[in-house]
Amino acid sequence: MKALPDAEVCIVGTGLMGTSLAKALRGYVRRLVGSDLSAVNRAAAAPSFDALYTDLTPLANADLIVLAIPVRAILSLLGKLPTIPVKAGALILDIGGTKTDITAAMNRLPETVFAIGGHPMCGKETSGPGDADGGLFVGCTFVLCPTERTTSDALTVARALVEVIRARAILLDPTTHDRAIAAISHLPYLVSASLVGAVMELAEETPAAWELAASGFRDTSRLAVSDVKMKGDALLTNRTAVIAALNALRTEIDMLHALLTSSDDVALREKMESVRTARNTWAERAERTGKQP
Amino acid sequence: MKALPDAEVCIVGTGLMGTSLAKALRGYVRRLVGSDLSAVNRAAAAPSFDALYTDLTPLANADLIVLAIPVRAILSLLGKLPTIPVKAGALILDIGGTKTDITAAMNRLPETVFAIGGHPMCGKETSGPGDADGGLFVGCTFVLCPTERTTSDALTVARALVEVIRARAILLDPTTHDRAIAAISHLPYLVSASLVGAVMELAEETPAAWELAASGFRDTSRLAVSDVKMKGDALLTNRTAVIAALNALRTEIDMLHALLTSSDDVALREKMESVRTARNTWAERAERTGKQP
Repeated sequence: MKALPDAEVCIVGTGLMGTSLAKALRGYVRRLVGSDLSAVNRAAAAPSFDALYTDLTPLANADLIVLAIPVRAILSLLGKLPTIPVKAGALILDIGGTKTDITAAMNRLPETVFAIGGHPMCGKETSGPGDADGGLFVGCTFVLCPTERTTSDALTVARALVEVIRARAILLDPTTHDRAIAAISHLPYLVSASLVGAVMELAEETPAAWELAASGFRDTSRLAVSDVKMKGDALLTNRTAVIAALNALRTEIDMLHALLTSSDDVALREKMESVRTARNTWAERAERTGKQP
Repeated sequence: MKALPDAEVCIVGTGLMGTSLAKALRGYVRRLVGSDLSAVNRAAAAPSFDALYTDLTPLANADLIVLAIPVRAILSLLGKLPTIPVKAGALILDIGGTKTDITAAMNRLPETVFAIGGHPMCGKETSGPGDADGGLFVGCTFVLCPTERTTSDALTVARALVEVIRARAILLDPTTHDRAIAAISHLPYLVSASLVGAVMELAEETPAAWELAASGFRDTSRLAVSDVKMKGDALLTNRTAVIAALNALRTEIDMLHALLTSSDDVALREKMESVRTARNTWAERAERTGKQP
C-alpha cells in the first residue's frame, strides 16, 4: 500500500465535503483527481483537483479512493465495486454519516482492495464545492471504523490523512458510532426541523412570530437547512438508532409538558438546572481538550 | 413627562440586561441609577451607573423606571407599587419576556404614573452584569406593548429609548406577543433543553455521544444554558401559549417518527424540503430588512 505522500487520491463526489478534502490534502499527496456526475460541481471543483472525471475510470489508477457522496450512493458504489476496475492494493475510505451498513458492505469487498469507514464530525449547512474550505476539518473529530478489510497499513494511511487535514482521529465500532451520531447529530437535525415545522404551523395564526424570531430561533433552527439528500440518507440508514433517540426526546418533551401543565415550579427548575449543568459540562470539556467548539 | 435626555433613569435589576441597558443609555439621559438586591451584581454594575441602591428608594426621584428583573419579580413589584414612593408622572417600562400578565398589572397602577410593556428580542445565555454589553440591542427588535396607562407622551419616551440603544421598535398587543414568543423563543428553549435531556439519557448507554458532539449539537443545544430563573418565569407566565407550542412540536415529531418508522423516503424528503425552504425564507427576509441575524 502506498504511503499518503506517494498516493494518487481519487475523491468520488466533489461537493462541499469532497472538495474541502481536496483543498486540505493539496500538497500532501502525489496527485488529486475527482469524479462527479454533476457538471456544475465539476466546474466549481476544478481548481482544487489535478483532473476531474464524470465517471469512475480514475479508480483504476488510484491508490486511495475517498467516497464523499451520500450514504446510499456509497452503498450502491461498494456493491458495484467488484465490477469496476480498481488497482490491486487500493484503500477505500468513505466519509458517510452512518457506518453500520457501509462497513458491512466493505466487509464484502474483494480481497484485492482494502477499506475503512470514516466520518469527519464537521460540515456546513450549505452544500456544493463553491463553499468548500480546506480548513473545514481543523480541530474536528474524525471517526475511523476499521473493517475486516482494514490492515494495519490501511489504518496507518487513514490516520495520516486525518493528521494532514488537522483533524483528530478516534477509533469506534460502527454500532457505537451510529448510536452516538443518532443522539448528537441526527436528533439535533430532527429537533431543528420539528421546531421549524411547529413555527410554520403556529405562525399561521400569529404571523408576528416570524417577525420576532431572533438569535435563539436562528441557532436552534440552523440544522433545518441541512442538505436534504445527505441528511435523508443518513437518517434512513440509521433508523433504529434514530427512532430510539426520537423516543428519548419524546420522553423529555412529555416531561416538560407535564411540569408546565401542573405549574410545578420546583421540578421544572430542577430539570432546567440539570440540562444546563450537563450542557455546560460538555462545553467546558470540549474546550479543555482543545476540540471544536 | 420628562423627555429622555432630561430624565433620571432608574433601572431595577442590574444583571446582564439591566447593566447592558445602562451602558447603552450612557450619555443619552440626565442620570442613571440602579437598584439590585445582590451586592455581587451591584459591585460589577457600579461602573455603568451614577449610583446604585439596594432598595427601591431611588424610584422616588426617577422620571423613567425600567424593570429589568424576572417576570414574576416584575409582577410582584407592580403589585406593591402603590405603597412605594414614586414621582408623579413617572414612566415605568419593563423588559420582561412575557407581556400579558405584566400589562394587565400595569393597567391596575395608580393614575399618577404611566406604564408600557417592553421586550427587547436579544440576550445572551450568560447572566450577570460582568457580561453586560452596550451594543447588545443594536439591530434587535424591541417590542412595545402599550397599556391603558400609556399616553402618547409615554410612547414617545419609550420609542426614544429604543432609538437611542439602536434597536427597532414594533408595537404589538400582549396576547400576540406572548403567542409569537412561545413559538420562536420559549419553544426553541424547550427543544434545546429536551435535546440535552435526551442526549444525557442516550449517553448512559453510549458515552461516545458526548465525545462526538460537534457544532450541530452545540448550536441546537445552546439555549439549554439560559438563565433558569429568567426563563422559568417566562415559561410559567406564558403557560397556555407554551403548551400550545409544545403540542404543535409534538405533532411534528410524531410525523417524523412515523415517516422514519415506515421508511417513507419521498414523504420524509418533502417534509425536510418544506422546513428547509421556510427557514431559508425567514433568514433571507431577516437579512433583507437589516435585522439580526
